[in-house]
Parts: sequence; structure tokens; C-alpha cells
Amino acid sequence: MYGLIGSFKANAGQGQQLADLLLRAAAALRANADCHLYVVSRAQDDPDLIWVTEAWTDSAAHQASLEDPEVRAQVAEGRALIAGMGQRFELDTLGGNGLPLS
Amino acid sequence: MYGLIGSFKANAGQGQQLADLLLRAAAALRANADCHLYVVSRAQDDPDLIWVTEAWTDSAAHQASLEDPEVRAQVAEGRALIAGMGQRFELDTLGGNGLPLS
Repeated sequence: MYGLIGSFKANAGQGQQLADLLLRAAAALRANADCHLYVVSRAQDDPDLIWVTEAWTDSAAHQASLEDPEVRAQVAEGRALIAGMGQRFELDTLGGNGLPLS
Repeated sequence: MYGLIGSFKANAGQGQQLADLLLRAAAALRANADCHLYVVSRAQDDPDLIWVTEAWTDSAAHQASLEDPEVRAQVAEGRALIAGMGQRFELDTLGGNGLPLS
């Protein structure tokens, strides 16, 4: 599987709004059989730093999802809340507990 | 939920061995109802850099798991494969797609 771990720094005080938007995106992705994981977290030491951990069948499936009109609208909405991109790690996700495929 | 994202740098050439050990740990954690996520990934640009994304009911449940004799044995086995600790992020995991609780 293609894995992504990334963080987004929201504008000051807008971390919860950004997290809510990403949780709505996660809910919409349940209909996408290629999205095996899309988990939203907040840094314990910074309420405006939001982390997303994703696992997809492959990077093509992830890329294709970004072309979806609903996803594009959410990305545009998210951009208005984001002060800057944090760290980003591209991974081969191997398995584990909690993944539907494993 | 209490979330953890962390990476471990294996000794040169031992990344797969470390990943296999962590996947066995993940399988054992399926019996732990407080462990909602334990996903093992490998950095695309470094086969010896292994990432683990975890979500637990709370930090006390995570801490308690580390006292389990089987887990302690796995940690000891893992230490022999690890050259150094990578980054580590403590999180409040809010939900998402793929989490049993969400």
C-alpha cells in the first residue's frame, strides 16, 4: 500500500476547523475502496498542528482521488485554513492492526 | 484517543527484519481492545527507516501495554535491530476512515 503521513499548520486558532474539515473528508473517503486509512490527529503540544495518516492501494489511487470534484472543493476550503505545510513522509505501508487489508 | 507517530532507524540492511518484528507485534495487539491502530510502514526513500502509527484508548492503555511480558520481549528483540530513534509525535487522534471507533 501507498502510505502518507503529513501535517498541516492551521492559522492560529483554526486547528479545530481544519480537523473538522479533514474528518468530513475522511467520512467521504469511506466510499472509496482504495482508501484503507485516513486518520486525523492533533498534536498534543499544538492545537493548530493537524496530522493525517493515510494508506491507499497505490499512489495512483491516491492521485486519482485528488481529481474528484468533492475532494477538490474540500482542498480549496482547507487551503483557506492552512498557514503552512508541515512535514510529509511518503511510505510503503506494510500492514498492521486496524487496517482492513491486513 | 491517544495517538503516536514514530520512526525507528534500523541497522543498515535490517529494516525488513525490524518491520517483520513490528508486524508480529501488531498482530499480537489485535487481542488488546484498547489498541485501535498499529500500522507499520517503511519510508519510500530509506528501506531501513520504519514508521509506526498507533491509536490507543488513552495514554494509560498504551503505557500498560508496555508492561506486558510478550511486548517487553519484543521490545528487547527490536532494540538489537535499531540503530537509533527517529522522530516521534504525540497526538490526540480524533477519528477518520479505517479506525474501528470512528
